[in-house]
Amino acid sequence: MDLASYGPYWVLSARRVNSKLPFKLSRGSQMTRNVRNIPAFVAGYGPVRPFTGVDAVSRAITRCAVDVRTETTGRTKLLPDIVTALRECGVRDGAVLSFHHHLRNGDHVMNMVLDQAARLGLRDLKVAPSSIFPVHAPLVEHMKTGVVTGVYTGYVAGPVAEAISAGMLENPAVLQTHGGRARAIESGELTIDVAFVAAPTADDYGNINGVQGRSACGVLGYAEVDVRAARRVVVVTDNLVAYPACPAEITQDFVDFVVAVPEIGDATQIVSGSTQITEDPAGLEIARVAADIIHASGMLIDGFSFQTGAGGVSLAVAKYVEERMRSKNVRGSFAAGGVTGTIVEMLEEGLFQSIFDVQCFDLRAVRSYRENPLHQGMSASLYGNPCNRGAVVNRLDTMILGAAEVDLDFNVNVSTRSNGVLLGGSGGHADTAFGSKLAIVTTKLRAGKFAKIVENVTTVTTPGSTIDVVVTEAGVAVNPRRADLADRLATAGINVVPIARLHDLANADTQRPVSPASSGRIVALQQYRDGSVIDVLTKVASASQF
Amino acid sequence: MDLASYGPYWVLSARRVNSKLPFKLSRGSQMTRNVRNIPAFVAGYGPVRPFTGVDAVSRAITRCAVDVRTETTGRTKLLPDIVTALRECGVRDGAVLSFHHHLRNGDHVMNMVLDQAARLGLRDLKVAPSSIFPVHAPLVEHMKTGVVTGVYTGYVAGPVAEAISAGMLENPAVLQTHGGRARAIESGELTIDVAFVAAPTADDYGNINGVQGRSACGVLGYAEVDVRAARRVVVVTDNLVAYPACPAEITQDFVDFVVAVPEIGDATQIVSGSTQITEDPAGLEIARVAADIIHASGMLIDGFSFQTGAGGVSLAVAKYVEERMRSKNVRGSFAAGGVTGTIVEMLEEGLFQSIFDVQCFDLRAVRSYRENPLHQGMSASLYGNPCNRGAVVNRLDTMILGAAEVDLDFNVNVSTRSNGVLLGGSGGHADTAFGSKLAIVTTKLRAGKFAKIVENVTTVTTPGSTIDVVVTEAGVAVNPRRADLADRLATAGINVVPIARLHDLANADTQRPVSPASSGRIVALQQYRDGSVIDVLTKVASASQF
Repeated sequence: MDLASYGPYWVLSARRVNSKLPFKLSRGSQMTRNVRNIPAFVAGYGPVRPFTGVDAVSRAITRCAVDVRTETTGRTKLLPDIVTALRECGVRDGAVLSFHHHLRNGDHVMNMVLDQAARLGLRDLKVAPSSIFPVHAPLVEHMKTGVVTGVYTGYVAGPVAEAISAGMLENPAVLQTHGGRARAIESGELTIDVAFVAAPTADDYGNINGVQGRSACGVLGYAEVDVRAARRVVVVTDNLVAYPACPAEITQDFVDFVVAVPEIGDATQIVSGSTQITEDPAGLEIARVAADIIHASGMLIDGFSFQTGAGGVSLAVAKYVEERMRSKNVRGSFAAGGVTGTIVEMLEEGLFQSIFDVQCFDLRAVRSYRENPLHQGMSASLYGNPCNRGAVVNRLDTMILGAAEVDLDFNVNVSTRSNGVLLGGSGGHADTAFGSKLAIVTTKLRAGKFAKIVENVTTVTTPGSTIDVVVTEAGVAVNPRRADLADRLATAGINVVPIARLHDLANADTQRPVSPASSGRIVALQQYRDGSVIDVLTKVASASQF
Repeated sequence: MDLASYGPYWVLSARRVNSKLPFKLSRGSQMTRNVRNIPAFVAGYGPVRPFTGVDAVSRAITRCAVDVRTETTGRTKLLPDIVTALRECGVRDGAVLSFHHHLRNGDHVMNMVLDQAARLGLRDLKVAPSSIFPVHAPLVEHMKTGVVTGVYTGYVAGPVAEAISAGMLENPAVLQTHGGRARAIESGELTIDVAFVAAPTADDYGNINGVQGRSACGVLGYAEVDVRAARRVVVVTDNLVAYPACPAEITQDFVDFVVAVPEIGDATQIVSGSTQITEDPAGLEIARVAADIIHASGMLIDGFSFQTGAGGVSLAVAKYVEERMRSKNVRGSFAAGGVTGTIVEMLEEGLFQSIFDVQCFDLRAVRSYRENPLHQGMSASLYGNPCNRGAVVNRLDTMILGAAEVDLDFNVNVSTRSNGVLLGGSGGHADTAFGSKLAIVTTKLRAGKFAKIVENVTTVTTPGSTIDVVVTEAGVAVNPRRADLADRLATAGINVVPIARLHDLANADTQRPVSPASSGRIVALQQYRDGSVIDVLTKVASASQF
């Protein structure tokens, strides 16, 4: 949302967590009050800078200095194994190790590295993977034994998430946005001692790419941020090729060491063969309405830019948008993402000029990125960092977002289940919601017997002031900040209703989720993209039951 | 030269400038004495770190912190003109402005910027262009008036070089190698306040490329270093395209402002239509012998890597190497450069796997870089920086170099004429000589009536310990450090002679150059790639006469 373009504007007040105050608007230039129950200091985290509004980003930042080991010989950088790499990098107790999630649920590298670190007797390590998946379950054991005592990540699902909620990590986990992670790393707020980079292809001097080899995953946008700022960089590959690896997406001048292993991951889990559009009629209807909204907003003209995720409804939105662009003969400027075959198809049809891609979601996207120069990679910083000279999200017209919960203030939760157990995190959610001129949340009213439109979201991931529209099967709610948009949608015959109405419909005849007993101990902090803390997660008795 | 691969080795002692000591070898692990006449302090430069040997590079370096202006809106970064850009960047007296030389002798941008700076009344500016050409003659006037009082560059030819030699610049000019310039910028030794980047194509948010538009110049490898480290980055373009410019070689997250102008340069001077092989029989013979030497060295096998410049003899060497690779069915790993159509042809024939290109020398190279993914761009840091994690020169087998003078210690001068007047500079000369396993200087014995093989070079640009062979029309001299190589060449029937013999032949019946009266005032310092000072240039009475 380019707030400046709205002049003096209405912003939603944030709510107190336990407040029963009715939804209301307060006039002001910023949301300046911290109204979640966020303490000033959290043990294991330190002083907390509370979220005070989406525009609190500093106008200037210092990109941190980096201590670099220089290499003036052409000698191979190959090391025999990960243990040697840990030793050569001087990893000690308390070190911060980073990883990327381009291999998703097929990644073997983080597990391999932490197993070796444990064997070496290292303790108190902090891990900073861009995301964590069920495949990383062995991390739970390292948390229990004190090998790993801190986690910084943009997204976490599976056993690690449950273990964090159950209080098994010594220090609170830090949940970042993808852009916020780039900001934290570039600014030196999060100092990486060693970045381990899973590389589908590498040469012995550290040139790597993600488009060749059995573990090809496409763009390496998250790793790009890490290698620029880490004190040491270790490439781990299962496809060591003759020098020079070409294309070199990350080049040798950013890499200290290379380790060859039999398998960096399980190819079947790295990228899906193809991402699938929903077949659920309600989902399709929501998607159709979302496309109608984009149309009605007036944005569907030449130069249109668009991003959507890989979920079934998001893909359906893309399909409907594609139809409308074709029929209106609209030539868009760019699609961004997380990219799927659906978006690739739109590029190939000429509906977009080019793609900015931080991560390929399926094989068709990998192939397109490898072969089509109009399909460009981007670093996570270029994607969403609020503290560089301008991220791609800033130029985004429309973003399609999901939600676990949305509340009366349009706040969105994608971090926890409604019972407070960690499941997910922002990823690029808060970044794209902020940047895009039209941030659309698509969601059903309920998940099973539980309402998804709630009074207060369990956890605030993305502030409501950056969400423009919520689309459900029972109608569309427009953020009161966007009266202009509400008018356009009503004129176009779209069923615009107050969010309170959606809330009532969602909550009629539903169960309230049973909240597990909480000790009140903070087990995770959800950061906003600027590094302020927008919410906290507390320990739940036994997360895995929920 | 990977010195470490030779174990304990012989190194040449450096010579005192006025010493008449005979050429000799001294055993030692390093060349540790400063033996040029280099003062410990130079006014306008400060304390001087003298050159002490090619391996004096520090094993660790800090890549400097950078103060960045953050941009969270999608608003255009277009400014109406260069004056506004200078103001918005807060340029004050004493600021350091950088420029790249990808537009070579066709560049208009540095002149435009400095004219506007002068109009604004700015004084005491330091300019840091990667190279300076005759087209930059207007800089002389800015030197006279005190608008510009300092110059940092890798190469300088034309009126600016003569003016520097004549003492018209207030502070001594600092001559760097291309890799050394990247090192100085990355380390913060040379802090750039504003990098002005001439962009053949740009969008309004700062994505740029060099492959589209009337001023297409190809790779933007020198600019890449500047934009990563500069406090502010201003793109100047004559081809403003719809967002997003694609491909984006330099992306928006590194750019503050964009200025559109009618013409960033004179296209006819930016790249030559095609680079031409020498037709001079002596030059061809030298080139043929150089190719024989590469063959005899045993390096012409699969995996061979190669770099040569754009001069007529260098291109002839490439042609002869091409013939031998084809006939021996050798598949090389990479060619690096400064790239010409001759090298592109070898890539297209499959003689090399890929190209690392810091700068395209002709139209065919520009086209290849635009269209062939195996033709990769590289930053000047990746090319030759001695203080990153490993530059491309470190992996180079053979480099073909030119020389204005070579001396009995194999030191090479490409910085001045033999009368001491500035003309040129290292560019990548010293970087590639150091990095390559076989650094071959090709030169005729004389230029006109003047000997090119001399007792002491007028100015040391590249230390003799990094030069392996000197090839002339009268025989080949091998550096005594490389007894292994001398044996191989002799076995192959190549006419190996002592360098003293070449010196005698060159100096028989030649004139000694008339040295202009020197005031002794230091007007320029020639840095080695590590930033130490390897030689100094003193003022000459009237440079333009010589």
